Amino acid sequence: MQASVIICTGGLGPTHDDITKDVLCAYFNDVLTENTVWLEHLTTFMQQRGRELSARNALQAMLPSTATMLFNPVGTAPGMLFERDGLVVVSLPGVPQEMKTIMTEHVVPHLTTMVAARDEAVWEYRTLHTTGIPEAALADVLGHPAAFLNNGTLAFLPNMSGVRLRIGVCARSADERTADLDRITSYIEQRAGKWVIGEGDTSLAEVVGRMLRARSETISVAESCTGGMLGAALTDIAGSSAYVEGGVITYSNAMKTALLGVDAHDLAMHGAVSETVARQMCEGVRRRCGTTYGVGITGVAGPDGGTAEKPVGTVWIGVAGPAATVVTMYRLGTDRRMNRERSVAAALAMVLSMMKGTDRAS
Amino acid sequence: MQASVIICTGGLGPTHDDITKDVLCAYFNDVLTENTVWLEHLTTFMQQRGRELSARNALQAMLPSTATMLFNPVGTAPGMLFERDGLVVVSLPGVPQEMKTIMTEHVVPHLTTMVAARDEAVWEYRTLHTTGIPEAALADVLGHPAAFLNNGTLAFLPNMSGVRLRIGVCARSADERTADLDRITSYIEQRAGKWVIGEGDTSLAEVVGRMLRARSETISVAESCTGGMLGAALTDIAGSSAYVEGGVITYSNAMKTALLGVDAHDLAMHGAVSETVARQMCEGVRRRCGTTYGVGITGVAGPDGGTAEKPVGTVWIGVAGPAATVVTMYRLGTDRRMNRERSVAAALAMVLSMMKGTDRAS
Repeated sequence: MQASVIICTGGLGPTHDDITKDVLCAYFNDVLTENTVWLEHLTTFMQQRGRELSARNALQAMLPSTATMLFNPVGTAPGMLFERDGLVVVSLPGVPQEMKTIMTEHVVPHLTTMVAARDEAVWEYRTLHTTGIPEAALADVLGHPAAFLNNGTLAFLPNMSGVRLRIGVCARSADERTADLDRITSYIEQRAGKWVIGEGDTSLAEVVGRMLRARSETISVAESCTGGMLGAALTDIAGSSAYVEGGVITYSNAMKTALLGVDAHDLAMHGAVSETVARQMCEGVRRRCGTTYGVGITGVAGPDGGTAEKPVGTVWIGVAGPAATVVTMYRLGTDRRMNRERSVAAALAMVLSMMKGTDRAS
Repeated sequence: MQASVIICTGGLGPTHDDITKDVLCAYFNDVLTENTVWLEHLTTFMQQRGRELSARNALQAMLPSTATMLFNPVGTAPGMLFERDGLVVVSLPGVPQEMKTIMTEHVVPHLTTMVAARDEAVWEYRTLHTTGIPEAALADVLGHPAAFLNNGTLAFLPNMSGVRLRIGVCARSADERTADLDRITSYIEQRAGKWVIGEGDTSLAEVVGRMLRARSETISVAESCTGGMLGAALTDIAGSSAYVEGGVITYSNAMKTALLGVDAHDLAMHGAVSETVARQMCEGVRRRCGTTYGVGITGVAGPDGGTAEKPVGTVWIGVAGPAATVVTMYRLGTDRRMNRERSVAAALAMVLSMMKGTDRAS
């Protein structure tokens, strides 16, 4: 046995192709027995959705007798945890949100306690989220990692909204690990602090939201090529109703005029993807929604619609605030989905800059 | 050597923690040499984005001399393919869209050709996308798989918008595989055809979009708890400007009145999450945008905002069409993200039903 913890996902559904429980029973010499706690939960779960518990769904309450049931608050298949001779085997449902919830609520705490009891040196990680600087440039700014990491590690993890820096340190005591993480964090902050927007899993939308809420400010959006993605990102955060009023999706030119009052003559003269239209979109939505900030996004997401002058990936983003309006052009790539995601990230970064007073006002 | 194909992703970036190329060189006794094709591409790639090629980024043109470069149209790190003594090792960048693009454009075709040349029995898969029926009920409708699969396989793959049925068959000749797939597909269509919306990777938004386009009809959205996600899903499809006009994100009650004309008295009397508000939202947005269909979504996504009468997961969805308006209440779950995703899927399924004439008009 080489691994001491095995985590598997999927195969816990009510259909013939889901054989995980049978395989685990065979491996652990176990049998399936009816778990009355889960059976009751399933019955209530279905009732609340106006459905009866079918015989097939009731099978999901048959669990290996020696496994610990891991409660699944968002689905019909619970997780299971086996411990035998120092080996931990965890089985989780495959639906991402169910898997993640059980992982966070049960598996991680269990493994954390288990590892702490061993009193060995362990790795601890901290992630700093940066935005507005490419991976290679960030690496140049930080300099050679050997200079500040000592025995720690540093991973560069780029995504659409920026580069996350994952710092890892290894020590026996939690205090020592915290001190090491603080030392490396402080080094990074000194060199690249202006690009660091938060720690951990924080998303750009969350950082913007937290700041809006703290300042009792509000935001509205006017989206063309992103078609609602910026609104979706902002309202993905629980509690966002405190600062998101709403906005408009003006996918067609007609809607830009009808819903936002964008000048039809300007649309004809400059095209929908232009500085003047982005400006009128963000200022128009800010006025109509009566918010502190208004954001307008208009671009050529692709794959069609590009021209020599405005190739696919050309995106104009405007942010209107109390003091000024900032409008910026981006030249993104050729992939439709990436262009849309990067437009959302760029817009959020612009709002953040304006709030921090680090933008270039026009 | 047990595997004949190894595919790895990630670790191709320009920073110190990306060691994939070094490891592959060590394994294959290879050296990094400058790939002039990629160097030129990188230079152009940066120029188009108004940036210079830094020394660090230029390192991404250093590739193992014996690997085939796999062109990456959406990023700065190309993929690599090694073939040695019957072993194929593929290395792809970790950014999902880059990985997927290279996989689709280069790796899958290469492996397909390779496998075809062997003239052995191979597995072929076909996926049917169903919506509107839970996994367990679908399994009951289809009956025991042994009755219709013969030597094929059937996997039930549930996600937010429905259950995908992945059929697998194994044979030497492509004709035989197609015949087997057709036979199983036809059995499933007979039993569960009314829930099947398409084949392959088709999303619900794509099916709705294709049908709208074929009928020269248009759509607009009014979103509260989904905050733009339905608009984002519809406009995720290339060419959606042919049928998506736009819409409004009315996250606050004030916006429901200001942007859509929802009656303030009704909002106060019935609450934002109510049949009458959903109806006014879909009819209001249809009228304002002048579209064939208007969709309104208003619900309690959670985690806060639930009451005894309207618990978290209560969502009202309205679809207004040329002939009628349909408004339906859903009782979803407790997880904010899942509630939002499932609301979008339910709304799209309702639009599809109305177009097919299988909805319950009110």
